[in-house]
Amino acid sequence: MSKNPPSADFCDHPPLPLGRAQSPTANFRAVDVIRKKRDGGELSSSEIESLVNAYTAGGIPDYQVSAWLMAVVLRGMTRAETTALTDAMLHSGEVLDLSSLPGRKVDKHSTGGVGDKTSLVLAPLAAAAGVLVPMISGRGLGHTGGTLDKLEAIPGFNVNLPIGQFRRVLETCGCAMIGQTPEIAPADRKLYALRDVTGTVESPYLICASIMSKKLAEGIDGLVLDVKTGSGAFMKNEKDAVFLADLMVETGERMGKQVVALITGMDQPLGRMIGNALEVVEAVEVLRGEGPEDLRQLCLELAGWMLRLGGAAPTVAEGKRQSEKLIASGDALEKFRQMVELQGGDPRSIDDFKRLPQARHSMTLRSPQSGRIVSLQCEQVGIACVVLGGGRERKEDSVDPAVGIVLHKKVGDAVSAGEPLATIHYNAEAPAARARQLLESSFQIADSPAPEKRPLIHRVIGKLAEKN
Amino acid sequence: MSKNPPSADFCDHPPLPLGRAQSPTANFRAVDVIRKKRDGGELSSSEIESLVNAYTAGGIPDYQVSAWLMAVVLRGMTRAETTALTDAMLHSGEVLDLSSLPGRKVDKHSTGGVGDKTSLVLAPLAAAAGVLVPMISGRGLGHTGGTLDKLEAIPGFNVNLPIGQFRRVLETCGCAMIGQTPEIAPADRKLYALRDVTGTVESPYLICASIMSKKLAEGIDGLVLDVKTGSGAFMKNEKDAVFLADLMVETGERMGKQVVALITGMDQPLGRMIGNALEVVEAVEVLRGEGPEDLRQLCLELAGWMLRLGGAAPTVAEGKRQSEKLIASGDALEKFRQMVELQGGDPRSIDDFKRLPQARHSMTLRSPQSGRIVSLQCEQVGIACVVLGGGRERKEDSVDPAVGIVLHKKVGDAVSAGEPLATIHYNAEAPAARARQLLESSFQIADSPAPEKRPLIHRVIGKLAEKN
Repeated sequence: MSKNPPSADFCDHPPLPLGRAQSPTANFRAVDVIRKKRDGGELSSSEIESLVNAYTAGGIPDYQVSAWLMAVVLRGMTRAETTALTDAMLHSGEVLDLSSLPGRKVDKHSTGGVGDKTSLVLAPLAAAAGVLVPMISGRGLGHTGGTLDKLEAIPGFNVNLPIGQFRRVLETCGCAMIGQTPEIAPADRKLYALRDVTGTVESPYLICASIMSKKLAEGIDGLVLDVKTGSGAFMKNEKDAVFLADLMVETGERMGKQVVALITGMDQPLGRMIGNALEVVEAVEVLRGEGPEDLRQLCLELAGWMLRLGGAAPTVAEGKRQSEKLIASGDALEKFRQMVELQGGDPRSIDDFKRLPQARHSMTLRSPQSGRIVSLQCEQVGIACVVLGGGRERKEDSVDPAVGIVLHKKVGDAVSAGEPLATIHYNAEAPAARARQLLESSFQIADSPAPEKRPLIHRVIGKLAEKN
Repeated sequence: MSKNPPSADFCDHPPLPLGRAQSPTANFRAVDVIRKKRDGGELSSSEIESLVNAYTAGGIPDYQVSAWLMAVVLRGMTRAETTALTDAMLHSGEVLDLSSLPGRKVDKHSTGGVGDKTSLVLAPLAAAAGVLVPMISGRGLGHTGGTLDKLEAIPGFNVNLPIGQFRRVLETCGCAMIGQTPEIAPADRKLYALRDVTGTVESPYLICASIMSKKLAEGIDGLVLDVKTGSGAFMKNEKDAVFLADLMVETGERMGKQVVALITGMDQPLGRMIGNALEVVEAVEVLRGEGPEDLRQLCLELAGWMLRLGGAAPTVAEGKRQSEKLIASGDALEKFRQMVELQGGDPRSIDDFKRLPQARHSMTLRSPQSGRIVSLQCEQVGIACVVLGGGRERKEDSVDPAVGIVLHKKVGDAVSAGEPLATIHYNAEAPAARARQLLESSFQIADSPAPEKRPLIHRVIGKLAEKN
């Protein structure tokens, strides 16, 4: 930008080595830590721990931490620093001790996509195989949905269980699904709120520490990460997704956990349904042995890994086979029904989808031409669902569980002029019209041969990946 | 640092293009500006103006501005952005309109050094030549002294004149010297306080905007910058000093002012005296036609430029000659006496130095060996003066005007064992002992031939530099 950029330590004047007494306030040290990171230095574990602890306790003001966060965004962190940050955030709050429950505890986390309802399938499926799944999830933000919003589409389902009740559900049925509690990683809550308003969300190091500190607070032994890449993911390019996956896996491993990351495609929505109640329907379909093939295959692959890490299967392939059997036998669906009931939800809505929230209106989007679906703007489909009221633009927005989109055609499908492309389920006309526009421009239809299908799972990262 | 750093736009998710109404709050825009700078983009003048105005008015919180400042430190700014920032900060407060006073108004600004008392010489000297000098200065911080602290060593001298009185002094005697008033560049005051605690002081772009906004608020037509480089300057290396000088000159020129920057050496203290009252003594000596040669020569060179920019001399050489005459005639000293009196100071202290604050004790530092002074750790000498109480470590510290150091030997001088190197003027034993230690280790004495003297003025930067 400038023709002759100066060196990083431009006119640097560190604290004077004076004989006068210096008060060792938290404030004073914070500036030193900021400067060190600004200049590309590596912070020690104790420096990072001091910063996180003092900030969580209110001993360092937001304006110092936001400057530090921006320095981290632009200077990066080493693996050791990332682990230290994760560890400090993890121990800023309560870490669940589930050692009294027999068996290994495994969770799955996705970096977020459109139509990703795999958590609703995986928790009961792995639990049915004897793996304990203590799952603490988030809400949707931006164009991606959130597991909590989907669960709340089930009438009565309570995602706000206190920790004690969470443990009892987990003990009783092997899985439980709740939202973040105030006890879990308070440093992350405070840091995330600050990052959100200071342009410092977008750092793989900070994203890693945020995700891993919350997940490891669940007291798990193993973690399966689903890192999405493609037009509908936060990470549009695969290099970034692999970088983050690698960072999270190494951080988890450094902290003594078994972690594996699957890099999976998010160039079009996963499955056919987008919207909270609709996604419950599709998850239940997969648990019934039905549902769209892409969703079903991804669930089986992730479940295979969860069973492998949870000690329920010697290999991922064996884990997948077991998972298929547990679906075929109805055990996985039964486990889901049990969890729904234990968390206050209406189990009848699982068998009778009419008991789930229903939108008042629907309209069908038809293809203007014959040809083949060449691409489907994934993020735009997600935004169409947000516009309908099915997602949040801002954290404080409420969500309409009933609205959403059902895709009848996906990438590679042939279509005739006038054939339905999608159905929009809506409760208000104006947003529906806007969503329709977005959807119309999302489908790219051309007279071309069937494209080669890229597998949904691009690669697997982690020490265990080679052995399976 | 990390083996595979991701791209800067890692998992970027800009605000959703939703149909919902977005409230155009200042907050919302601040994040966009932060993100743009974070990603290396160039901000528009109106984006910078909005940010500065909203921040000054309290419409944007500190934590957003500190993140933005860190992004500026690490990403830099273009010349257009630097000018826009300077302009926005300048217009955050009052800009003096001195157009009713006949004649050109010129000021001098130094980036700070040890023993730099040139302002006390230059304001009356240029005023004696008919140039108006409306000088608004700062206090010492760290190892460097400040003009206001030096002026306040003169009994009764008031640096806190309100603007109206400042104008009257200026009108009456052609020069006036005060501290920053609340009306001048309030954005700079607020930004500097934030930079100080967030590790964002060290950016040439921010330093430029801070200096230039305050100086241009004086309503001047021309500005002579003395940009120090060397071990006793904030910019240790010359490349950084030249970069900043070039930035300030171009910024001033873009804003329609005549600006020139002298890059001058600060590898050892300027002159022989360091400490507030002592520096008043040495400045008066120069105004009497005495004083050490390095200080005298630098004052004449800077005065030459001030007269040139102020229209009092057609060339710098002519300006220097005139300045020498004004010193020889006593006119410059008389002008200083007049200003001191108009600002409430005791003019008798100029003729009788015993009326200036005197330290109770002094001790002499003698050379442990014969040889030649090879180097003199400039910053350490400055710190020794701070230790004595003559400077500030923190802004809120008070300053003892009487204490200080007189150097009897400087770089290149021959010395015999037992000969005095320096005299320490002090009021308390413990700081004096510590200052003595610092001074002892500042002198490097060796048995070597006289080194080649590097000229004090390294180069001159600015459009006008070639023409003189």
